[in-house]
Amino acid sequence: MDDLPILARSAWLEDGQVVIVDETALPQSLVLIRAHDCAQVVEAIRAMKTRAFGQLLSVLYGMLMVAQQSARDPLERQLSALREAAVLLGGARTTFPLRELTDQVLEVAEGAGRRGDSVVQALERRVGEFVAKAQAARVDRAAQVAALVRDGATILTHCNVSGEMVLIGRACRAAGKTVRFIATETRPYFQGARLTAWELAEDGFAVQLIADGAVAHVMAAGLVDWVVVGSDRSAANGDVANKVGTYQIALLARHFGIPFYVLAQPSPTFASGRDIPVEERDPDELLSYRGQRITPEGVQGYYPAFDITPHELITRHFAIRIPRNVLGEDARR
Amino acid sequence: MDDLPILARSAWLEDGQVVIVDETALPQSLVLIRAHDCAQVVEAIRAMKTRAFGQLLSVLYGMLMVAQQSARDPLERQLSALREAAVLLGGARTTFPLRELTDQVLEVAEGAGRRGDSVVQALERRVGEFVAKAQAARVDRAAQVAALVRDGATILTHCNVSGEMVLIGRACRAAGKTVRFIATETRPYFQGARLTAWELAEDGFAVQLIADGAVAHVMAAGLVDWVVVGSDRSAANGDVANKVGTYQIALLARHFGIPFYVLAQPSPTFASGRDIPVEERDPDELLSYRGQRITPEGVQGYYPAFDITPHELITRHFAIRIPRNVLGEDARR
Repeated sequence: MDDLPILARSAWLEDGQVVIVDETALPQSLVLIRAHDCAQVVEAIRAMKTRAFGQLLSVLYGMLMVAQQSARDPLERQLSALREAAVLLGGARTTFPLRELTDQVLEVAEGAGRRGDSVVQALERRVGEFVAKAQAARVDRAAQVAALVRDGATILTHCNVSGEMVLIGRACRAAGKTVRFIATETRPYFQGARLTAWELAEDGFAVQLIADGAVAHVMAAGLVDWVVVGSDRSAANGDVANKVGTYQIALLARHFGIPFYVLAQPSPTFASGRDIPVEERDPDELLSYRGQRITPEGVQGYYPAFDITPHELITRHFAIRIPRNVLGEDARR
Repeated sequence: MDDLPILARSAWLEDGQVVIVDETALPQSLVLIRAHDCAQVVEAIRAMKTRAFGQLLSVLYGMLMVAQQSARDPLERQLSALREAAVLLGGARTTFPLRELTDQVLEVAEGAGRRGDSVVQALERRVGEFVAKAQAARVDRAAQVAALVRDGATILTHCNVSGEMVLIGRACRAAGKTVRFIATETRPYFQGARLTAWELAEDGFAVQLIADGAVAHVMAAGLVDWVVVGSDRSAANGDVANKVGTYQIALLARHFGIPFYVLAQPSPTFASGRDIPVEERDPDELLSYRGQRITPEGVQGYYPAFDITPHELITRHFAIRIPRNVLGEDARR
């Protein structure tokens, strides 16, 4: 999997530590965070050092780390450590369904325990399989999207989809098609500027960065053929939660008759987008940039990290094709 | 006029120099630029040290400075210096109708010359009157807007209208009405964060800063009652050019049924918005923040400074009520 874009493999387990690529240091430098316990993993996620697919990997490997650390303990202590970890890691952020993931890992552990199998071995196998399948599924999904892209098209994207835009670009290239990208800078965290534009340029794709306010202008000018965005959570009715700004891009795409595609994370816990909790983050991320205050004290900020795009605005969902319960299945055997 | 917000009186003539408030240093510090010649005024405008109403004042006082500097020259040399200044200052930026302004000043000068009057005295009188009328007209326009605002309303605004949002707030306050503001940060120059949110907070108004991508989210949440924006140029059909991002806010306001008001600068040189030239600025303003590169070399940026909002999306224009040709009238007498 070394040929995957770095953001598609941005956390792993090494020497009993969760190693996390610090996405906030990118693209200037490649900083690796080494987490020794769950609290450190949670801290990295809360501070958005890792996000999207990276936080999913961090949480999975965080659970595995705890299993390894408690491998010599009696079963009940192992499971108890994992239950505690599931709560901690699963609650790291509001909108992304981390708790669903940690609960599935827990089921695997409990299933292994009931059968008298080694918990740590069961988790190593299942987490390893899950990550491999998830990565393969993302490559496969990118190929599906790319198959529909016409030669010479320009795709506008928002925020960062952990290497998947690069995978789409590569699949187009492999098919002899030219594809260009427009990346919104995605304030306040600049994921579009720092991550998406960077990883696409690194891989040799033509990419233009625009301000989040310039979307209607480039659409009206006929510069956008497709919108492709990721999503942090989906509801059963097809509504999706994604980085704030996605909803208005979907409304604008509808206005201009531009197809709007979502790389979806099926997670049908919620009936509709209305039920998905939207994380509000510290407005300081809006009020300052790298420690420099942009606006003075006295100004308040409001920073909803996500917004909900209703399914009516979505031309098509590309759901990831791994069994939702690849982890849980083992437990339910 | 000392009681006007600082951004409504951000350039003046002092000791034969055009003094310009450096808006890029705000709100951290109040830096005054002292321009000795037209090139320095143009430089301040091009670098967006001053903008909106401030650049109008800078250009007018730049013309007056040139008249003063050439006051002892023979008439033809005076007029020639002014013609040269009109071209320089009038061409400082593409979208704002600076050339119309400098041409009007030129007419006044030529009219005075034909009548054998002092050019510099004629300009001092006319420019003084124009600025006073423009400032009074802005106060008056703010009062008109405020008269329509209902108690407790929240106004969303974009970019910065040179103190006029403060004037609207003050007029509401004088009428015993509470008004709140949401300011978009307005990338890449952060005029909303640095100028609008700052000047409103300074004046004691409740103001919340949001990312440019959060507009649909706050509108969908019912947090916005009105949108009020300025404009840099209008076409005869009512289309307006304003800071990039305005157009999509207008589209979103239409979608959510929120009134969209424009403080307009009538300048009917153009039949429609299609004819208004849109300035493209150096993408470096998007790729870096205060000298720190956000995204690495290899990433290209696209930075249209303005966009065109079609008149169908505008609930009402509040045009400034000074005779368009308050300068030219004198010349045509």
